[in-house]
Amino acid sequence: MRKVAVVGVGQSKFGRDTKHTLPELSWIAIREALEDAGVEKKDVGFVALANLGVWSSEFFPAPLVLEYAGLTPSGSMRVEAACASGSAALRVAYQAVASGMTDVALAVGVERMNESETPKVVELLGRGGSYFWEFEQFGLTFPGYYALYATAYMQEYGATEEDLAKIAVKNHYYGSMNPKAQFQKRIKVEDVLSSKYVAWPLKIFDCSPITDGAAAVVLASENVAAKLTDTPVWIRGIGAATGPGNITRRSDLLSIETVRTAAEQAYRMAGIWPESPLKHLDLALVHDCFTIAEILAYEDLGLAERGTGYMLAREEQTYIGGVIPVNLDGGLKAKGHPIAATGLSMIYEATRQLQQRVEKDRQAPIKKGWALTHNVGGTGHFAYVTLLSLER
Amino acid sequence: MRKVAVVGVGQSKFGRDTKHTLPELSWIAIREALEDAGVEKKDVGFVALANLGVWSSEFFPAPLVLEYAGLTPSGSMRVEAACASGSAALRVAYQAVASGMTDVALAVGVERMNESETPKVVELLGRGGSYFWEFEQFGLTFPGYYALYATAYMQEYGATEEDLAKIAVKNHYYGSMNPKAQFQKRIKVEDVLSSKYVAWPLKIFDCSPITDGAAAVVLASENVAAKLTDTPVWIRGIGAATGPGNITRRSDLLSIETVRTAAEQAYRMAGIWPESPLKHLDLALVHDCFTIAEILAYEDLGLAERGTGYMLAREEQTYIGGVIPVNLDGGLKAKGHPIAATGLSMIYEATRQLQQRVEKDRQAPIKKGWALTHNVGGTGHFAYVTLLSLER
Repeated sequence: MRKVAVVGVGQSKFGRDTKHTLPELSWIAIREALEDAGVEKKDVGFVALANLGVWSSEFFPAPLVLEYAGLTPSGSMRVEAACASGSAALRVAYQAVASGMTDVALAVGVERMNESETPKVVELLGRGGSYFWEFEQFGLTFPGYYALYATAYMQEYGATEEDLAKIAVKNHYYGSMNPKAQFQKRIKVEDVLSSKYVAWPLKIFDCSPITDGAAAVVLASENVAAKLTDTPVWIRGIGAATGPGNITRRSDLLSIETVRTAAEQAYRMAGIWPESPLKHLDLALVHDCFTIAEILAYEDLGLAERGTGYMLAREEQTYIGGVIPVNLDGGLKAKGHPIAATGLSMIYEATRQLQQRVEKDRQAPIKKGWALTHNVGGTGHFAYVTLLSLER
Repeated sequence: MRKVAVVGVGQSKFGRDTKHTLPELSWIAIREALEDAGVEKKDVGFVALANLGVWSSEFFPAPLVLEYAGLTPSGSMRVEAACASGSAALRVAYQAVASGMTDVALAVGVERMNESETPKVVELLGRGGSYFWEFEQFGLTFPGYYALYATAYMQEYGATEEDLAKIAVKNHYYGSMNPKAQFQKRIKVEDVLSSKYVAWPLKIFDCSPITDGAAAVVLASENVAAKLTDTPVWIRGIGAATGPGNITRRSDLLSIETVRTAAEQAYRMAGIWPESPLKHLDLALVHDCFTIAEILAYEDLGLAERGTGYMLAREEQTYIGGVIPVNLDGGLKAKGHPIAATGLSMIYEATRQLQQRVEKDRQAPIKKGWALTHNVGGTGHFAYVTLLSLER
């Protein structure tokens, strides 16, 4: 297998942005990534575009984005893996280079969620599970699914609403230093606890927001990467797993099994299984669509033992200086969650962290040279885990 | 690059099928493909699912299909390249194996178009171009786009409505022998000419129908393929190109530029460029969404000189025994066109033709051992060309 490196990354300012069309928003991220890589458009051999677009009137976004960006006639496709779509696009671009089909590939993720009104977006997100059995029959919406995880977890392990709140406080803290984050205000535990319930025990501050945004990543083969940059960031592991559509088919709600499967795959591919990932990682970016999801991620990724993830939150061990810093960009919670852009935004952040290019107060110490990204689609319907390293 | 072979194919009976759900319809094709390959579900390392689903209430089909087929926890994603989605899924599965990420991958394409009523389907298909500029502003629907190609072509080269009709007659002729085709009645040139106009000069018999259907293809690495079958069919070339969203940005309407680009890529990858493909191919499956599209394909693929494709139709040179047999399965025109299944249905047919497993009267003589598939998305927004061969 050919080795593949991230050689350029770009991201729009996340937030409410109804003034840019889908191609314009994409171009903000693509331009930054191409400039960061020093790659010319004509050298891009394939483009994988992540976009859900269920809230959009344009059903076939790839040609519009490529035309606007001047990237035709490169081959392309749109990919979707619910909220993990960005990581799916990364995998397609990775495979295009690793297989030898092209030397340079581009992965782009973009979402314009504010194109629709909020109730419509909430309805569409509610279809993230099995529409027929869950949404249509039982009226489950997305916060409702994660509230099921939270109640099961709190009941079993004794975690509290305050533990969940501490995830939000941390992610807003780091978001406040990230100029590309949607929310840049720090909050306190009391702010979270006194905020309105959405689906008990999750309150408004436990939930990621509705966001417009785009992210882009340029990948290159070893030979090309060597010409472009002195600090390529190598993709060392990619794992992916799919879970049942229907949440009643899961073995339990205390863990997301697809994440464990995808993580093991990624660790094995990187050659670090079954060691503790804490031995290798300088930081992780995890899919905190709701605060409970970050706690489950700690456990499912092997950063904490089963049933103890909430203690990392309680003891503030996932700040810089703790056991492992997590979501130093603000996470989905404060940076925002433009669905299909999220996985690639994680790669944007992980790459810049490893290259020590982020704002000083939120820069992780880079001692081991590895970072992990964890991107979940639906309620565990899809899981993608990616390992990045400064070591080839 | 690792060599990759088709080791199993499956397809549902195309037609109007509202009794199977999306997962059920998918399973018909998946089961046949897995049995054909002799592969166990647990050995499938990745699944690429092609589905447009814009007419569906299930927005995230991959987990539903994998759950029903018993293929969880394999990694998966949905891919979309408009009417070329099936070929995009093939490419993802191909790259998964060629890169070494997995030894066995599955590509599935499925569409339930009759879930919506016909006017809704026609509206949604009309969005195949640039929704904002073309559909919303000018009211262009899909037959209208291809009528623009037909009028330009007829004006420039002197082709007639009768030449177009002969494509439909041929494809219905072969469809009549294909038990999996939607239409199994032979028609005459007069039937086409006297049928109702949809968008001049295209009549109802110049258009592919609305179809429900699924197709699936199992790919394997060289070592695994050798264990599974004596007649692997090797993927020797894949080309892909993207065109502008807006049809006004095309250089002309006499040719689909993305097809020429994708074909050249595929021929180069297979090492047969710039020879005439007629030297190598025993048959071709082309994207005849409208009769004019098949004539353009002859030229853009290099099976005929520019401006002479209609002569192949007029002289009946694309029947068995002619210059090159095309669409011996009935094509999109008679076999049906369940959008995202079409590209993989072409691989199903090409594989079985090369292995000499189709009904006797529509079996092409296999002398050179190569076949081509040509799958267009939108009006040339996407083009995918694939070359298959019995030679490794």
